[in-house]
Amino acid sequence: MEYLQVTFRIEAGAGEASVLAESLLLEQTIETPLDVARRYPFVRDNMLGRILELAPETEDVVLATLELPLVNARLGVPQFLNVLFGNSSLHERVSLDSFELPPALAKEYPGPRFGIAGIRDRLGVHGRPLTCSALKPVGLTTTQLSSLCRTFALGGIDLIKDDHYLANQPFSPFRERVASCIMAVLDAATETGRRSVYCPNLCGTPDEILRQADEAQEMGVQAVMVAPMLIGLPMFAELVRNRLNIPVLAHPSFAGSTRIRPDTLQGRLFRMLGADAIIFANYGGRFSYSPGVCEAIAERAREPWHHFAPAFPVPAGGMQVERTAELIDFFGMDTILLVGGSLLAAGDALLEQTRKFTESVAEAASTRTR
Amino acid sequence: MEYLQVTFRIEAGAGEASVLAESLLLEQTIETPLDVARRYPFVRDNMLGRILELAPETEDVVLATLELPLVNARLGVPQFLNVLFGNSSLHERVSLDSFELPPALAKEYPGPRFGIAGIRDRLGVHGRPLTCSALKPVGLTTTQLSSLCRTFALGGIDLIKDDHYLANQPFSPFRERVASCIMAVLDAATETGRRSVYCPNLCGTPDEILRQADEAQEMGVQAVMVAPMLIGLPMFAELVRNRLNIPVLAHPSFAGSTRIRPDTLQGRLFRMLGADAIIFANYGGRFSYSPGVCEAIAERAREPWHHFAPAFPVPAGGMQVERTAELIDFFGMDTILLVGGSLLAAGDALLEQTRKFTESVAEAASTRTR
Repeated sequence: MEYLQVTFRIEAGAGEASVLAESLLLEQTIETPLDVARRYPFVRDNMLGRILELAPETEDVVLATLELPLVNARLGVPQFLNVLFGNSSLHERVSLDSFELPPALAKEYPGPRFGIAGIRDRLGVHGRPLTCSALKPVGLTTTQLSSLCRTFALGGIDLIKDDHYLANQPFSPFRERVASCIMAVLDAATETGRRSVYCPNLCGTPDEILRQADEAQEMGVQAVMVAPMLIGLPMFAELVRNRLNIPVLAHPSFAGSTRIRPDTLQGRLFRMLGADAIIFANYGGRFSYSPGVCEAIAERAREPWHHFAPAFPVPAGGMQVERTAELIDFFGMDTILLVGGSLLAAGDALLEQTRKFTESVAEAASTRTR
Repeated sequence: MEYLQVTFRIEAGAGEASVLAESLLLEQTIETPLDVARRYPFVRDNMLGRILELAPETEDVVLATLELPLVNARLGVPQFLNVLFGNSSLHERVSLDSFELPPALAKEYPGPRFGIAGIRDRLGVHGRPLTCSALKPVGLTTTQLSSLCRTFALGGIDLIKDDHYLANQPFSPFRERVASCIMAVLDAATETGRRSVYCPNLCGTPDEILRQADEAQEMGVQAVMVAPMLIGLPMFAELVRNRLNIPVLAHPSFAGSTRIRPDTLQGRLFRMLGADAIIFANYGGRFSYSPGVCEAIAERAREPWHHFAPAFPVPAGGMQVERTAELIDFFGMDTILLVGGSLLAAGDALLEQTRKFTESVAEAASTRTR
C-alpha cells in the first residue's frame, strides 16, 4: 500500500485535536461510519489510511499528519486536491499545512520544465538575479503599453510581463498587444544588443487561454504568465503539460483565498504542476506576508524535491529599487527581482529609473561574487 | 461606465479600514500609485473605480463596498475572479463578503439551466422535497456499488449519486460503473414502476472530465455531480455551458478552502455558473456551519436573482433519517434531502432504512401541505 502524507493544522488542544484528527481521517477516506467500511474486506484493508503523528505546535494548535490511500489521490489534479484538502477544507478549524509526495505520485507530475537553469540559459544571464517589471496600469492602449515595454527593454530589464489585469480588453486586445510588445523588445535589441523577454498574461475562458497560448507561441513569445488559482489548478497543469513549450511565471492572484499554507500552495503545488518562476507577495510591500513566510516560499521553490527542477522565486508586490541589495542578501542570486509601480512612478524619467534598477542589481551581484 | 459591486469584509477598526479600503481599491484596479494613473486620461476616467460605502459591522470589522470597472471583470470566469477577489485575497485581514452583478455581466452567465422546476419536471416529483443518497465508501467494486444503487432505487430514492471520491479507480472504472448503475435503476424501475436518477461524479483531468461528460450522456445518464472548486470554476462554467445537457449537482469539496463567505461562493457563484442543485455541509452534521450560514446558502440558491433560475439547496454531511421533519421545516419543500452514511449504517436492513427515509419525507410533506 502506498500513501499520500498530508499534515493538517488543527486549531484545538491535544485532546480535542485527536478526536478531530480521527474524524478528518474518515472524511478524507471512506466518509461513512467505520462499521460500514469494516463490512468490506478490500475497503477495510486498503481505504482507511491512518494517523501517523499528532504533534502539538502550541497549546491550541496540533499538526496532525495523516496517511491517505494513494490510489484515490492519483487520476488527475482534481482528485489529488480532493484527497489533499477536499471536504477537510470545510472544517473551520482545519487548514492545510503541508504534504509529502510518494515517488509514485511525484512521477506523474512534470514540475518546472525549465526552472532556474532553463530560464537562465534562454536569457543568457548567469551570476546575478534576473530583473523583471510589469506593463501597467490596465486601461493603457496597445501603443502605450508597447512604448513602456520598449523603455523597459532599453533599460535592460530581463523579463517584461503584463499586468495580471491585462486580458483581452477592447482597448488592448491580446493578439495586437503581443505582436506590438514583441516588436518593441526586438526594436530595443537593435540598440542595446541584448534581447529582453516579453511575457504576456494568459487569461480568459479555458478555450481562450488555450488559443492565447498557441497564438503567443506562434508569434515567438519566449515566456508567459498565468495565475494558476484563477484558471484552476487542473487547467494550469494541463496547459503546461499539453500546450506550452516555453517557461511559465505563476501569478498569485486568488491564491490567498485558500486556507492553505502559502509555501505549500505557491511553493509546492505551483512548482509540482510546472511553474518555472513563482511570483509572490513579498514582505515589506503592499501585503502582509512575514519574512519567514517569504523565505519558506523561496525555499519550497528551490529545494531538492523529487525530480522537480528548482523554480525561481519572484518576490513582488510594491517592491522598490532601493531594496535591491537587501533583497539579494535575503533571497540570494537565484531570484527574479520584480519592480513594477515604483519604476512607473518615475514618469518621464522611466528610462533612467529602469537603468538605476538594472545597474543596482548588476552591482550588488558583482559585490557579492567578488 | 458600468461597475461590479464587491463587498469586502475588513478586519480593522473604522479608521484603519478606510485606509485599507483605499489600498484595496488600487489593488483591484490600476495596481500602481495613483499618480501614475492620473497621467493617462482614459485610465483616470475609466479604470479607477470608487468606494461606495464603508459600513462598520462591529468595532473591529468594516464591510467595504467597492465599485470596480466592469470592463475588466468580463472576458470569462478567470478575469471575473481576478477583479472579484484576486490580489485582494492575499491581504490577510480581507475576505470576500458578497457581490452584485450588473445586468450586463449577469447576462453573460447562464445560471441553472434546469433548476428546481426543471429537475422536478424531469423526475415527475412535485409537492415534496426530493430524496438523495450516495454510493460509498470508495473501494467498493462496481458490482457492490450497483447493488447499493439498486437497493436505494427500490427504496424510492429520487437521486442516487456517487460518493465524491469515486473517480476512475481501477477497482471501479468510470464507464463500467456508470453502465452498471444505469442498469440497476432500470432494473429497480421494473419492480417499482418509478425510475430513480443515478448521478455519476465527474472527476479527472480536464480532458477526462469532458470525455466522462460525453460518455455519461451517451449512456443515458440524467444528471451528474461535479465539484466546481476541484475542477476549477472556469472549467466548471465551460463544462456546463458547452458539454452538459442534463442537470448538475455541485459538490462542495475544496470550497471551504477559500476566504469567501459560504453563501456567496456556493449560493451565488456556483448558481451563476450553472449549478442546478447545491450540496453543502448542513448544520448539526459532521461540519461546523451554523444554521444561519445554511439558511443563507439556501436563500442565495433560490431567491430571485437576474434571469437565473432557482437552484435546489441540498443540505448534507452526516444527516440522519430522524431529522427529516426538522429539515423540511427549516429548508422548506424545494429542497433535496441527502442522507448517505446513516442509511448505509443499517447494513442488511438497508432497504428498510431507505424506505423509512423516503416514507418519512412523503409523510412530513403531506402533513405540511394538508
